[in-house]
Amino acid sequence: MLVDVIPCVNEARSDDLIQKTVIVIDVLRATSTIVTALEHGCAAVVPTETVNQAKQCQQEGDLLGGERFCKKIAGFDFGNSPAEYSTPAVAGKRVVLTTTNGTRAIQKSQRAGRMLAGCLLNAEACAEAAYSFGRDIVILCAGTQDEFCLEDGLCAGLLVRYLQQLGDGRLQANDFGSAMLHAFDAVQGGLEEALLSCASGRRLVKLGHEDDVRFCARTNVYRLVPVWKDQSLVRF
Amino acid sequence: MLVDVIPCVNEARSDDLIQKTVIVIDVLRATSTIVTALEHGCAAVVPTETVNQAKQCQQEGDLLGGERFCKKIAGFDFGNSPAEYSTPAVAGKRVVLTTTNGTRAIQKSQRAGRMLAGCLLNAEACAEAAYSFGRDIVILCAGTQDEFCLEDGLCAGLLVRYLQQLGDGRLQANDFGSAMLHAFDAVQGGLEEALLSCASGRRLVKLGHEDDVRFCARTNVYRLVPVWKDQSLVRF
Repeated sequence: MLVDVIPCVNEARSDDLIQKTVIVIDVLRATSTIVTALEHGCAAVVPTETVNQAKQCQQEGDLLGGERFCKKIAGFDFGNSPAEYSTPAVAGKRVVLTTTNGTRAIQKSQRAGRMLAGCLLNAEACAEAAYSFGRDIVILCAGTQDEFCLEDGLCAGLLVRYLQQLGDGRLQANDFGSAMLHAFDAVQGGLEEALLSCASGRRLVKLGHEDDVRFCARTNVYRLVPVWKDQSLVRF
Repeated sequence: MLVDVIPCVNEARSDDLIQKTVIVIDVLRATSTIVTALEHGCAAVVPTETVNQAKQCQQEGDLLGGERFCKKIAGFDFGNSPAEYSTPAVAGKRVVLTTTNGTRAIQKSQRAGRMLAGCLLNAEACAEAAYSFGRDIVILCAGTQDEFCLEDGLCAGLLVRYLQQLGDGRLQANDFGSAMLHAFDAVQGGLEEALLSCASGRRLVKLGHEDDVRFCARTNVYRLVPVWKDQSLVRF
């Protein structure tokens, strides 16, 4: 089984994802938010690329969530803080979500054989689900503004670590995946500090979202794995 | 001082290199070969993108070197094994060199304020020279076939480590640079093994160049730093 890690959305070619299992990662904050919402009873998360698409997708009873430049969008029910979605308000509801990078990565991965959403919060369960499909795996780091970001890379490294354990050494990662695995190995005791000091983390702290960074830096808090089905992410 | 590490040539935008000090890295094997040739008395290395350009650049007395698909080019004096250049044959001569990835990275960096060639063999001296210029630094990993390769990333991580020591903690690396620094920290005791097992290393071993990989995996063997001047790389 091959595992390719891709550093950011604009490095992904849709054709390379066909037939594969794709894990989309946007640790700060889209996939952490999606996992948290589904864990708290949200029925489905519908990702859209633009604010207008989000409004058009909204059906009766749906909640609107999302951010631009890390801030909640005017008129929306929620921003992109995972803590906002860990409340009874989301139970049984669909959430239409638009974010800067994470939803773009999800849209780009629609031709995958299977698509999952991963983050530190559900890393182990996500690796196990991806491995169970028996196909080659692509881990797509969303990145920020078309650039690699450390928090997604470290999460990819952790996923490679779990996948290698599941594959009993017979799993071959690409060079970028190996580099992320090494980076995770060096950092693992200090994930929260690494997330607070990387570019996205510093930006969120400056905007008053330090609690979000700490929330998203925790590993394996949830066993829930969001999987792509009928244009939305639902519980696996 | 800012240090940006760029994962591979096609991620570099020439405009972002203006006024900066650029360190081009192609550990397997172009920059290792260039450092080795200059260390052994070669007068200058003239990099060209194509085989035809190499032939056109050749003046009387010049040697022709280079590879395509890791193999020596027909009619050339040398291939791209650094060991070939550690002989008296290169002393006092210019070498016109064309390689698949390294020379492309050098050509792309011509608008830099200063351009240096780095590899594991001269990492510490290269970091010291780059730091001495006092400008922001870009470390450009050549990569392989437009993809990141581990050996260049690990070398970039080592350079970031030295630059941070020189900058006494006041130096800010981009997220990709931080990731490479962490990866280097995890691997440092086993660089040779990492280079033998990464994609480029496996390819070179298969083609009978295992000795080259071991040669290039050594750190700080040379104090020599190639610097770009008048369309060629010469001793700093």
